[in-house]
Amino acid sequence: MDSGLLVRVPAHITGFFSAHPAADPLQAGSTGAGITLADAITVRIHPASEREILVGNRPTAVPAVEHVLSELDVTARVSAYVEVPLGSGFGVSGAIALACAFGANQLAEDDRSENELIGIAHAGDVLAGTGLGDVVAQHRGGAPIRLEPGAPGYGRLDGIPESRPVEWIARGELSTAEILAGDTEAIDRAGATALEGLREEPTLERLVAESRQFAAEADLLTDQIETIIADVEAVGGHASMAMLGHTVFALDDGLSRAGYDANPHRMASSGVRIVGPEAQD
Amino acid sequence: MDSGLLVRVPAHITGFFSAHPAADPLQAGSTGAGITLADAITVRIHPASEREILVGNRPTAVPAVEHVLSELDVTARVSAYVEVPLGSGFGVSGAIALACAFGANQLAEDDRSENELIGIAHAGDVLAGTGLGDVVAQHRGGAPIRLEPGAPGYGRLDGIPESRPVEWIARGELSTAEILAGDTEAIDRAGATALEGLREEPTLERLVAESRQFAAEADLLTDQIETIIADVEAVGGHASMAMLGHTVFALDDGLSRAGYDANPHRMASSGVRIVGPEAQD
Repeated sequence: MDSGLLVRVPAHITGFFSAHPAADPLQAGSTGAGITLADAITVRIHPASEREILVGNRPTAVPAVEHVLSELDVTARVSAYVEVPLGSGFGVSGAIALACAFGANQLAEDDRSENELIGIAHAGDVLAGTGLGDVVAQHRGGAPIRLEPGAPGYGRLDGIPESRPVEWIARGELSTAEILAGDTEAIDRAGATALEGLREEPTLERLVAESRQFAAEADLLTDQIETIIADVEAVGGHASMAMLGHTVFALDDGLSRAGYDANPHRMASSGVRIVGPEAQD
Repeated sequence: MDSGLLVRVPAHITGFFSAHPAADPLQAGSTGAGITLADAITVRIHPASEREILVGNRPTAVPAVEHVLSELDVTARVSAYVEVPLGSGFGVSGAIALACAFGANQLAEDDRSENELIGIAHAGDVLAGTGLGDVVAQHRGGAPIRLEPGAPGYGRLDGIPESRPVEWIARGELSTAEILAGDTEAIDRAGATALEGLREEPTLERLVAESRQFAAEADLLTDQIETIIADVEAVGGHASMAMLGHTVFALDDGLSRAGYDANPHRMASSGVRIVGPEAQD
């Protein structure tokens, strides 16, 4: 009998953000908004004599996940299957950490609440420098608006009450840690303006428009990304850049209509789902 | 072309609660905990020249829904199909109100955020006296713990990170409004004790055990309900009473094993889902 657990979590594309550092990783985080993609990350976790983390069958260092396993005192083999690329603005490290927190808690018959588990995964992502707001967004699903930064108890979320298909194409990695270690003043200012705009009109089209404006003002666009976005807009579509990756996302079939070979996704309607013989959904 | 929208929401079985009245319906609510049942309520909403609310094809007064339609200034025909009985502790009125809030917002191309829509549905349920905590629980899905009462911005939620099958049988209605209008001191005291216990050990079995204790201490059990719960416990199962209804719920197949002809459900992994040609999930 395989005593492993299968856990599914959404990917999270951040459209815009402001960084909010803090000494306590539960209070640190980001405000901003994005879109979650249904079931994009599947994690299998089972007890093992040694800790091992595989992403797409290859041993991979994911410090956020190591933090979660240490905090929960679980030695496990973690295999993640991801339908989105790493280092490209989909929050994959946070997603695997979140899946592990829920899976390890159940395997160990530990008695943590959902908020505690989200907090542990969020802290792991923050301390690793791989994400500031992905974990809380991935737990909510939908199109989360991060009103206040931080883990449950500190952060505050809202959401856009809409669901539309989403497409993306990825053109290579960007280092979140490097960009966040640099001067983020322009980013933070542009992120605050975008959040204000989205709160006035919380729709998916406004989210993309504010994200587009944010990417330009924060000076994060490359020529290649700018060209793709312009191509989508030329066919009447809505597109922007995923933060932080060389990735363009679009509503509906905007990228396909502009002639790109894009990856289609549904928006997530739920966050973490433990899938197994006793917990199917 | 049918321009209607189909919206699915979970039912919510409350295991225990404390009432927290307040002049502002957004601040009023309850603390406590319960279990949400996947896709138990389906609501079809479309624009119409006159307001009409049907539950199971019969014209039905649902004041919480009327509040939502008035607040959003939408005239619509609302048809709800429910897999759980009315007035039996499943939060049906709150569920229909929540579905209507999301559906009417989209039909009217209004630009409310998720938190605003949850608030409007919550206020409708509170003002109608039909529910105090169902709406916020139904939006979260899973097994929600209501730490602080009220709509988003006031209330605070946690959850039990587990999913197990649930069964129920209903033996008739109980009036939430009547019980809440009476002396709720014993209820509120028992609810606070149960919440403290569940926060120490946030598992589904503890939820049922605390609910069982609550029902006895708050003096809400009838002989019939007590017998059914005892029968489930006699076969090693976990059961308690749904608040507020003559309904028994059990984990896994506890009721079937005790010989009852029970209704099986999956726990909900998500809250509101707008299902339609453009928003399938």
